[in-house]
Amino acid sequence: MYRDTKDAGIRPAPAGRDGGNGVAGPGEAPAAAPQGGSFGGGKTVAIAGLGLIGGSLALALKANTACTVVGIDRDEGTQAAALAAGAVDTAGTEGLADADILILALPPSAAAPFLREHGGALKKGALVTDVCGVKRAVVAACEPLCRERGLVFLGGHPMAGKETSGFASADAGLFRGASYILTPTEDTPETAVRTMRELAAAVGCARVTLATPEEHDRMIAFTSQLPHVLAGAYVKSPCCPRHAGFSAGSYRDVSRVAAVDEKLWTQLFRLNADDLCQEIDTLIENLRTCRDAIAAKDPAQLESVLRESRLRKESVTP
Amino acid sequence: MYRDTKDAGIRPAPAGRDGGNGVAGPGEAPAAAPQGGSFGGGKTVAIAGLGLIGGSLALALKANTACTVVGIDRDEGTQAAALAAGAVDTAGTEGLADADILILALPPSAAAPFLREHGGALKKGALVTDVCGVKRAVVAACEPLCRERGLVFLGGHPMAGKETSGFASADAGLFRGASYILTPTEDTPETAVRTMRELAAAVGCARVTLATPEEHDRMIAFTSQLPHVLAGAYVKSPCCPRHAGFSAGSYRDVSRVAAVDEKLWTQLFRLNADDLCQEIDTLIENLRTCRDAIAAKDPAQLESVLRESRLRKESVTP
Repeated sequence: MYRDTKDAGIRPAPAGRDGGNGVAGPGEAPAAAPQGGSFGGGKTVAIAGLGLIGGSLALALKANTACTVVGIDRDEGTQAAALAAGAVDTAGTEGLADADILILALPPSAAAPFLREHGGALKKGALVTDVCGVKRAVVAACEPLCRERGLVFLGGHPMAGKETSGFASADAGLFRGASYILTPTEDTPETAVRTMRELAAAVGCARVTLATPEEHDRMIAFTSQLPHVLAGAYVKSPCCPRHAGFSAGSYRDVSRVAAVDEKLWTQLFRLNADDLCQEIDTLIENLRTCRDAIAAKDPAQLESVLRESRLRKESVTP
Repeated sequence: MYRDTKDAGIRPAPAGRDGGNGVAGPGEAPAAAPQGGSFGGGKTVAIAGLGLIGGSLALALKANTACTVVGIDRDEGTQAAALAAGAVDTAGTEGLADADILILALPPSAAAPFLREHGGALKKGALVTDVCGVKRAVVAACEPLCRERGLVFLGGHPMAGKETSGFASADAGLFRGASYILTPTEDTPETAVRTMRELAAAVGCARVTLATPEEHDRMIAFTSQLPHVLAGAYVKSPCCPRHAGFSAGSYRDVSRVAAVDEKLWTQLFRLNADDLCQEIDTLIENLRTCRDAIAAKDPAQLESVLRESRLRKESVTP
């Protein structure tokens, strides 16, 4: 079981700047151009799914490393666009035979089916990872499939995104300064974690977080899924259509991610229903506490509710 | 009653750029440097309260116009800092006698008391405005006080802010591209609205919104107060202290304004308790709809809830 250095940063990100390209550890020689630290030279990375995340990984790997990227997308137009953009060297499943790493940049429901259909084309010992926003369900489905085929699986979730999707939104800089969560299990060899740390650094991530799939899902329910639920609930206020001229940064920030791809997020929410419902319940309870203090018009009670929030916010790392 | 051009923009803000400095209307001569359009030359503006908003207004007026700025703050150190920063030309209530405009950049509870104590020092016909985040209570308190003293009152609320406060956070660029809400009543002369439009343009605002105090409070409950309530409720999740390494933009955006000045916001929430409680209730109801769809694990039901939010978000102006 791989459980050593939790939250061990690759290196601290300089404030407001790209935190992870071309990383060389202390005492090592600086990485030569192209950047990417110890990742890349001679490696072949296949990416299944060239949407926002898969496309951005492809672009970042080509920009920062010397590795070969094979792009696979069920949409031929997307494969062609990725080839034209220089995000991938070759396109199509034929390239899987050469892959040292396969990144499943697919919705959760498509990850295991892709492995079932194409896993046999990979070399024995190849590393398979995914980028799905839920980890318990995906690791439980993919790890045994990999084991059966002599492949190594390591779940992953780069904490970067945008409110737009598709290859057209892909960006080599998407992962700059981001955290990359990895969820090794008892079966995960240390070399797989090391390789994924190097890949995370190569695409620009500032930090790797190691967590169990359970910890990941619990935390992501709060940090990512709840804000998406919230944004969707917020914009349903009858006031929303008239916000222009009355709004500023607070409205913009809360409403930003309200327009999610409902098919993808239905999967993500359903596969994390227990943790997410718990977070929604906690939020509703805390909203109600504040609401009751406002309705009571008791200044001391309301000040105390707001003070508690301020102290909590001030006490957590930004 | 002043109810003509609702939401009439000063001019559209060029995307992503300062939208309002040095504005000259169509057919007018371009404003000569210093900028500020038709506002400024020869005018004296007194600002009571040199915190984030008052201090930023002072800095912006000095940077963009030729007007004289008198700064008043109960804290002498703040007055000295504003003088040293060139935000004000003189400091102290003695300057009120020369003021053409008095901006009450004070908490709601301090606005009317300041007028009661110092309103008599102003010239007859001087324009008094405020920057408070609630308008029904402030207009109801200040307008009669001004009328009795031969002064003109016009409520205002520049839609700009930061998650920090005080003169140390003041910034001449705070209002760039922002909306400035004005709440004229039946008693408001047209010249007062015109002057405040010019001031809004001079400090960098992109747009002036005219609304009744009631409309203002209803809309602000949704666009500003609710996100602050939300942020405070959100950070109280037991997961929050462990967010680092698991979070990205969604967490940052929702939690940004959680650390409010509890004394100020207790006033703002209590003076808008009816509208704000209604918004919180609506949000809780919409959260519950989404929660129930997640718990039911019925994909069609959940997709429909998320689609409704997406369509709403896509249908409103950004």
